[in-house]
Amino acid sequence: MCGTDSPASINKGSLPSANGNGTRSPTCSSDRVLNLEQGDPSVFQSYWSKMEDKCTMVISGSQLMSYISDFTTLCWFMEPEFQEAVRRLHRVVGNAVVDDRYIVVGTGSTQLYQAALYALTSPGGPEPVSVVSAAPYYSAYPEETDYLRSGLYKWAGDAYEFDKNGTGPYIEVVNSPNNPDGTLREAVVTNRGDEGKLIHDLAYYWPQYTPIIRPADHDNMTFTFSKSTGHAGSRIGWAVVKDKEVARKMSKFIEMSTLGVSKDSQQRAAKIMGVICDGYKNFKSDELFFEHTRRVMAERWERLRQVVDRNQVFSLPKYPKQYCLFSGELIEPYPGFAWLEAKEKEEEIDSQKVLRGCIKVQGRTGSRFGVAQKYTRVSLLSNEEVFKEFLERLSTIKSMTSNGH
Amino acid sequence: MCGTDSPASINKGSLPSANGNGTRSPTCSSDRVLNLEQGDPSVFQSYWSKMEDKCTMVISGSQLMSYISDFTTLCWFMEPEFQEAVRRLHRVVGNAVVDDRYIVVGTGSTQLYQAALYALTSPGGPEPVSVVSAAPYYSAYPEETDYLRSGLYKWAGDAYEFDKNGTGPYIEVVNSPNNPDGTLREAVVTNRGDEGKLIHDLAYYWPQYTPIIRPADHDNMTFTFSKSTGHAGSRIGWAVVKDKEVARKMSKFIEMSTLGVSKDSQQRAAKIMGVICDGYKNFKSDELFFEHTRRVMAERWERLRQVVDRNQVFSLPKYPKQYCLFSGELIEPYPGFAWLEAKEKEEEIDSQKVLRGCIKVQGRTGSRFGVAQKYTRVSLLSNEEVFKEFLERLSTIKSMTSNGH
Repeated sequence: MCGTDSPASINKGSLPSANGNGTRSPTCSSDRVLNLEQGDPSVFQSYWSKMEDKCTMVISGSQLMSYISDFTTLCWFMEPEFQEAVRRLHRVVGNAVVDDRYIVVGTGSTQLYQAALYALTSPGGPEPVSVVSAAPYYSAYPEETDYLRSGLYKWAGDAYEFDKNGTGPYIEVVNSPNNPDGTLREAVVTNRGDEGKLIHDLAYYWPQYTPIIRPADHDNMTFTFSKSTGHAGSRIGWAVVKDKEVARKMSKFIEMSTLGVSKDSQQRAAKIMGVICDGYKNFKSDELFFEHTRRVMAERWERLRQVVDRNQVFSLPKYPKQYCLFSGELIEPYPGFAWLEAKEKEEEIDSQKVLRGCIKVQGRTGSRFGVAQKYTRVSLLSNEEVFKEFLERLSTIKSMTSNGH
Repeated sequence: MCGTDSPASINKGSLPSANGNGTRSPTCSSDRVLNLEQGDPSVFQSYWSKMEDKCTMVISGSQLMSYISDFTTLCWFMEPEFQEAVRRLHRVVGNAVVDDRYIVVGTGSTQLYQAALYALTSPGGPEPVSVVSAAPYYSAYPEETDYLRSGLYKWAGDAYEFDKNGTGPYIEVVNSPNNPDGTLREAVVTNRGDEGKLIHDLAYYWPQYTPIIRPADHDNMTFTFSKSTGHAGSRIGWAVVKDKEVARKMSKFIEMSTLGVSKDSQQRAAKIMGVICDGYKNFKSDELFFEHTRRVMAERWERLRQVVDRNQVFSLPKYPKQYCLFSGELIEPYPGFAWLEAKEKEEEIDSQKVLRGCIKVQGRTGSRFGVAQKYTRVSLLSNEEVFKEFLERLSTIKSMTSNGH
């Protein structure tokens, strides 16, 4: 689910980072705001443009009309073809254990996060269960947890803080690789007996962003079509769940929330995942999906680090190389976001404001992620034109004072 | 949203009322349970089969990838083509005022119902707002209102009861034509000053089910693709809203709930609505959509009433003829559900149990709709094979005692 919450704060006249439907193309003009606040995954569009003939989805007027996919299964609104494609993709990539696990489809992993909260807390007790995640945490977690003022669960902030001072039943959300900062993570709350439950948000645990260090095998894992292949507009996500009762309750949540998940999009996702997997089976594609997208992300990070190193205003996280089971190589992570930290020592410096004021780049402030506003998250998943414009603008910034560029 | 909640209670081995994807065809065997509990709108599939060439949706691998449809609009994830199609369809049918109204797209009207509750109650006060609807009310309202134990709103039951004894701020959901009983309705809670707000669930306010007595012009109206055209699997609904702030909050809810709505399905809905409207513009179709579907529903009701009149075990509601602005005729309602009432005087008789036990027909008990269990709701929207089997079984039932058929 990570990366694309709350575009409402973007003003009219800003430049979307995406090329929505392939027809409304953004143009770069230096006096327009470059919107890199959301993580719209436009970077992968060019790959799919080259694959058009293989990926084209055709749906006749009388297909996919029923609410029901298979009443004999726990997740009765999940298309069997979608479930098969998900299992096959994970087996090809090796990033998650799917044998003897339940799959639950959702309207993006945003919905699955909420389905998991419901499943792990209902029917509920006298007090809502605390939901925590280690800061810097994904900026949408607090809002998505609290907007309905549920009596089942409530946002309780930074997991490190909860580990020190918190009490009672809790859910820790482990986002790995983490949005915003790209680090591979483990749970941080420890020694609580059976009071804690875990949700692993693995939206970015794919080879274009990170070494695949092991097949993830956690109790409750969520993934999304948006970040794995770049098809955010389809709103498709899935959970891989160990416990049958949790999977059943998650399905029940989705039934009560939206009475199922678009079959058109489930079938489209199945098709696109199938094309990726066929590529690895046949080795006939010019360039396979994860190799292509990893190469693009690696190039972006190299270009970004050159600019950041040169002007010495921001720093970026350093990531250790790790052995990737998918590629069979020691490789670096290439996260979907740059987590920029102002080098000036003053903690209160507002780097988002500086980026917006000096070079008209809209990122998201660190305070939204539970840390200081010297940090700003900037999307690296825009199309090439916008990314190039971002680097050009970033190269002109010479200091964190507003007149210094 | 009306009609298709909670299939979880259906056992394995039951017969779905739908022909899901056009390939998994149900077969009728007298020893299998006929599932008519949900309102899966399979009845309209044969019409769309004949229209295949006009309605086929083609989506290439690189289209509709962005989260964003139009950042300059309030509902930034709504495809402009979808919005235009919705406005055009309402203008052709004349069932709702759409000029100077906001349109909000949702993942089915199930999500829009919850979006409206959020919009009308947030940020909330010390006590949750009471949500009521006149019994018999749609069976999913209580669960969809209460499953997250929201502090913003809570289900408070029958609106007639609330009108007599209830106090404080409230939302009345007016479902017209009403599911389960097919009646055209008005709000029933009166004389409360500005304490009350209304949601009009107009899922069935289409010419195949009811005379269109006027263009509906309420504050907050919801509609669904599922019941208007029969495409339930796409999970598309829309709201027509007068107040900008309410529309903005509903969009915000959908952003927090699912980060938008499947673009694949929005585009498919736009295409299918366009085909319907083109038919009325050109008058070239063999039979236009609403004429065809109304004829089918009228025939079903005629056949149903013959069986019910003959065996004298149940009664059905009588509906007055009213002038329909769409057809220009005095016509009867033909609801999507039969609301069967056992004729025996004993209030506690369980007609759902009798139908299940005697003729293996699974309906939904009146107690789920807030009334006596002498009532059972049975879907009339199945495919022809299943509907015919239902009538054959119903004709064999001779009394409400379990051995009497």
